[in-house]
Amino acid sequence: MADPLLVLLDPSAPDGLRVAPEGEAALRVTDLGVTRGDGVFETIGVFDGRAQNVGPHLDRLERSAGMIDLVPPARETLEAAIERAIREHEDVADLGVRVIVTRGPEGENTPTAWVHAKEWPLSTAERTGLHVVTLDRGVSTTAPASSPWLLLGAKTLSYAVNMAASREAARRGADDVLFVSSDGYALEGPTSTLLVRRGDRFSTTPAEAGVLPGTSLAAVVTRLREQGQEVHEELLTVEDVRSADAAWLLSSVRRAAPIRRLDDTDLNIDEELTATLSGAISGRS
Amino acid sequence: MADPLLVLLDPSAPDGLRVAPEGEAALRVTDLGVTRGDGVFETIGVFDGRAQNVGPHLDRLERSAGMIDLVPPARETLEAAIERAIREHEDVADLGVRVIVTRGPEGENTPTAWVHAKEWPLSTAERTGLHVVTLDRGVSTTAPASSPWLLLGAKTLSYAVNMAASREAARRGADDVLFVSSDGYALEGPTSTLLVRRGDRFSTTPAEAGVLPGTSLAAVVTRLREQGQEVHEELLTVEDVRSADAAWLLSSVRRAAPIRRLDDTDLNIDEELTATLSGAISGRS
Repeated sequence: MADPLLVLLDPSAPDGLRVAPEGEAALRVTDLGVTRGDGVFETIGVFDGRAQNVGPHLDRLERSAGMIDLVPPARETLEAAIERAIREHEDVADLGVRVIVTRGPEGENTPTAWVHAKEWPLSTAERTGLHVVTLDRGVSTTAPASSPWLLLGAKTLSYAVNMAASREAARRGADDVLFVSSDGYALEGPTSTLLVRRGDRFSTTPAEAGVLPGTSLAAVVTRLREQGQEVHEELLTVEDVRSADAAWLLSSVRRAAPIRRLDDTDLNIDEELTATLSGAISGRS
Repeated sequence: MADPLLVLLDPSAPDGLRVAPEGEAALRVTDLGVTRGDGVFETIGVFDGRAQNVGPHLDRLERSAGMIDLVPPARETLEAAIERAIREHEDVADLGVRVIVTRGPEGENTPTAWVHAKEWPLSTAERTGLHVVTLDRGVSTTAPASSPWLLLGAKTLSYAVNMAASREAARRGADDVLFVSSDGYALEGPTSTLLVRRGDRFSTTPAEAGVLPGTSLAAVVTRLREQGQEVHEELLTVEDVRSADAAWLLSSVRRAAPIRRLDDTDLNIDEELTATLSGAISGRS
């Protein structure tokens, strides 16, 4: 693995950026990012040196930040940091670039921000098909509209539940999770967006139901539209997904990871379509 | 305000502890505590130099850690760090001591831990009575039993929702929040436990409903028991709280903060009982 690389947003540096080794202690323990999980992030996929969907990622970062009343650093500074992290990182095929903005040290009212690039190879399951288990997320699809403080659809640093759900999947011998709302609808994975094909109808969870608006999904929607297909935002039950002709968990670095098994039900894997969708996300084809 | 003080658990130090100024950058940006809110914490109240309920706090820290499959540092090391942080801090009347354990830097499988002592004076509202608003937490009281991965009742670092709820309260001109379950029961505050008095019956939310088992509550239960009273763990509706004879939000540093107004309803403040309960929590009487 190539060395990961860190670019810190540092107002005292000449160009506002400082490159540091990943292992450097750069954060204070009073940073609200760590004491309260109070911050937002994005993970950008960089394939053969080309960062994908940087604009939509920074749009979503700003949207998430707005949902927690946080003002992120200037967009051009973040863009410069991303570019710098990629340029200074060893040239590898698949790179993941995390952009993180926290509320900063308690009482200082100055966000902390950094960009962290690291090599991010796919696992075998991500390439050949995921065994996914459904887990209740405990919240209704109507909650986001009535209770914005629940931050459903914001990509915050408070991911302990997502991590616990992933561990629960591993405990059950599975690779990943599909969260289900308390009113019975398929939502998203802990770090991915659901896409389902039933016949020639493609569907994904509506953002209003409390899922992250997927940046990878947007790339997929564009590609499918070129092929004359629409992706419908509509609520699906778990049974809808189980009986689908194919289903994927989409994310920026893992691209279109096919679901080969949902709980105890085997799903068909559409290899050609998987390659097309992954190509749309990676910009490789 | 006296200078806050930081004690880092550092295996390379002779006694496993290193004292540092609060402002020192001591954390890596890859620490899962910050990138995923993946860790647990406690806040211990120290009054006139005496730490209260250290045992119950460390019990709860271990319980929270267990819920996220995290093995905290040895208990005696944490106890020594707490003692050291108090001893080296300037002598003040009201000190808050945070104990934090994260999953540590990604890929290293070694928790990061520190203790942070700082002066923590009460606000006027905490002393004279809180205006509290009810906010939906979106989750049912039955979810904790069926979905342990939701980490309800674990004191993790993923507090973004608690912070967002507190900001929503401020936006409404209020001081604090009482979370309500999706099935209509009063739960707890973002950083506190609910205690209600109706006639001579004291009630609090059952831990099984998905609230933190309160360490301050335990001190209050002991004191009330000495006075011949029991505290009943029972589900209360918001209306039960509104029509109560008195209600408090209990926490280790703020002690028993009386609720003077719940949404649009004024509540009675029982000053004598408030002093008794706060005294039980602070160990001052």
